[in-house]
Amino acid sequence: MYIIAVYDVAAERTPKMLKLCRAYLHWIQNSVFEGELSEVQVKELVYKAKEIMDESYDSFILFKSRHTYHMDKQLIGKSLNDTDQFL
Amino acid sequence: MYIIAVYDVAAERTPKMLKLCRAYLHWIQNSVFEGELSEVQVKELVYKAKEIMDESYDSFILFKSRHTYHMDKQLIGKSLNDTDQFL
Repeated sequence: MYIIAVYDVAAERTPKMLKLCRAYLHWIQNSVFEGELSEVQVKELVYKAKEIMDESYDSFILFKSRHTYHMDKQLIGKSLNDTDQFL
Repeated sequence: MYIIAVYDVAAERTPKMLKLCRAYLHWIQNSVFEGELSEVQVKELVYKAKEIMDESYDSFILFKSRHTYHMDKQLIGKSLNDTDQFL
């Protein structure tokens, strides 16, 4: 299924969350990712995110759509492709 | 249509972008919003965002779906409803 994932975690946990999300999804903005995942991959991602997160402080939201074609994406401003120096 | 909006802008422009997005959408995470907007409202939002943004530096992404029921949302961790002290 098509996934949009956004996290908001404390700075000290950001590198781990970034690395985790990039292992499963495409990085499209600061803390925003998208991609196609199976049900099993979604469960893995959530399980691993919970291991990193402090759930009383951090937040991680997954939007799930059965079909990519239901979502149009509009980008205003800079693409993350221009900022690969952060990798 | 159902909209998910995420921005990544320089700190000095964050208050204006937050205020703008909250005028059109529900605030669900640090820089993440969702809601139902008409085509006209989407155009207004994009127009006003461009007035605030430095498009060579900032980024604003809109995901658009014809129908809310195509998207499931899963929240792990803290809901923004618990953090109204930032308002």
